[in-house]
Amino acid sequence: MKSISIQGIKGSFHHEAVVKFFQNEKVEILDSPTFKSLVTDVVSKKTDYGMMAIENSIAGAILPNYSLITKYKLHIIGEIVLPIKHHLLVLPEETIDTITEVRTHPMALLQCENFLEKYPDWKLLAKDDTATCARNIHEKKLKGIATIGSKLAAEMYHLKILQENIHDISDNYTRFYLLSTTPEKINNFNKASLYFTTDHTMGSLAKVLNTLAKYKMNMTKIQSVPLSGSVFQYSFHVDIVSKESGYDTYYEALEEIKTQTGFLHVLGEYKEYKIEK
Amino acid sequence: MKSISIQGIKGSFHHEAVVKFFQNEKVEILDSPTFKSLVTDVVSKKTDYGMMAIENSIAGAILPNYSLITKYKLHIIGEIVLPIKHHLLVLPEETIDTITEVRTHPMALLQCENFLEKYPDWKLLAKDDTATCARNIHEKKLKGIATIGSKLAAEMYHLKILQENIHDISDNYTRFYLLSTTPEKINNFNKASLYFTTDHTMGSLAKVLNTLAKYKMNMTKIQSVPLSGSVFQYSFHVDIVSKESGYDTYYEALEEIKTQTGFLHVLGEYKEYKIEK
Repeated sequence: MKSISIQGIKGSFHHEAVVKFFQNEKVEILDSPTFKSLVTDVVSKKTDYGMMAIENSIAGAILPNYSLITKYKLHIIGEIVLPIKHHLLVLPEETIDTITEVRTHPMALLQCENFLEKYPDWKLLAKDDTATCARNIHEKKLKGIATIGSKLAAEMYHLKILQENIHDISDNYTRFYLLSTTPEKINNFNKASLYFTTDHTMGSLAKVLNTLAKYKMNMTKIQSVPLSGSVFQYSFHVDIVSKESGYDTYYEALEEIKTQTGFLHVLGEYKEYKIEK
Repeated sequence: MKSISIQGIKGSFHHEAVVKFFQNEKVEILDSPTFKSLVTDVVSKKTDYGMMAIENSIAGAILPNYSLITKYKLHIIGEIVLPIKHHLLVLPEETIDTITEVRTHPMALLQCENFLEKYPDWKLLAKDDTATCARNIHEKKLKGIATIGSKLAAEMYHLKILQENIHDISDNYTRFYLLSTTPEKINNFNKASLYFTTDHTMGSLAKVLNTLAKYKMNMTKIQSVPLSGSVFQYSFHVDIVSKESGYDTYYEALEEIKTQTGFLHVLGEYKEYKIEK
């Protein structure tokens, strides 16, 4: 059975990402307190893979996680995108009137601002993660205390969903990468994550993008990152999807881009996850 | 006297950004609990300007703050970049051996990981902001408790810097924008922040970048953002600096880009801040 390290505990969005990615396949899940420990679990072979959040449609990319991938030379071998839905979770006997406090991750508090403004008397407490709050409410039988979390957290820790979908913005997605120490060959991969530098001459990035267009590679993400130690040089994270052009064209494009960049790392070649709407 | 709203309280990095931007000019500073309230203070004319963090070299862009700028139709009229330096702050009588706990913002804990690992017995507590921790230690005379914060916070709240520069990575910069409800004309501006959409046809972004190169506009930032409500369309944040090309060229480039984009918003035209190294 494959083992996968996640950030946080069971019932977290990371856990949900693993369930969605592996579907009916049975896998073993290992809780890990931080993104860094998630990665070192994979590197030290404590687990086979790591599932790690990389970007959120509202908050943007988690750049330090890109740094972990490059620093530890990990390979992206898959991706999955989760819609983030927040629910108000409480002990089974609670009602909206018995709640006095909400504890959850600061991002969840922020994303449910409109709902929470309706209850100005509630004390709002920022905590490290939502699943741990859910577990504590269940295990310590915390009366009057709600958390904001996922359906999976409600199921895992036997909490009641007092109010569904309390998030302000419905278009909230988080992308996760499945990471491995070895570049497993993915059949029919159609997406690649590239990381490269250009010199800071005028139009050097435009040249790379022209090449991608010439080889009919569709770009689904681009982000400049200032290079550490060099304020005036930039590196870029670019995701490309090849539609019908096939592998030969992809490898030709890669060869041409190599001549236009300082360094070019292929962080992974994998199957694009299509968001169903 | 000009009034400026900041996120957090005096002694925060936002306060430091105001001091650095206005230098010897006397200004009034208004504390604001959240980024949203900082912005609404400006919109409601409670203050003249807002100073708001927009990106960090390690953590990346704060996309929700870009959303606040566009949602409330604010104009960027200046920028400033702060090197982020973390110090260990305590009451004057403390030594390294009397510390039992460190309370600060989770980002500060993360950025001082190597230093904190040397003291495994210290309890680490995540708090909302570093300057408030410093103020509490001073006002409540909290013995044995340290915070991680700036030199300004140490000065403001009469704390001792027990250990200087405890951050892991020295290349840590945060960029702040000065925001106004009106597009003040900045003399000799050389930088502009653009926000635009392209259609999702192959090479549409490459066309825009070719135009920028043609008019000798240097790009200092690019980031794609998935458009809310449309998973397959993207918008882009692009910062450009015109070197010697002058205003005419800039306006010509803008006109040409308008024909290549869905919508094009100029979020601000201002003077580039040059990082001194």
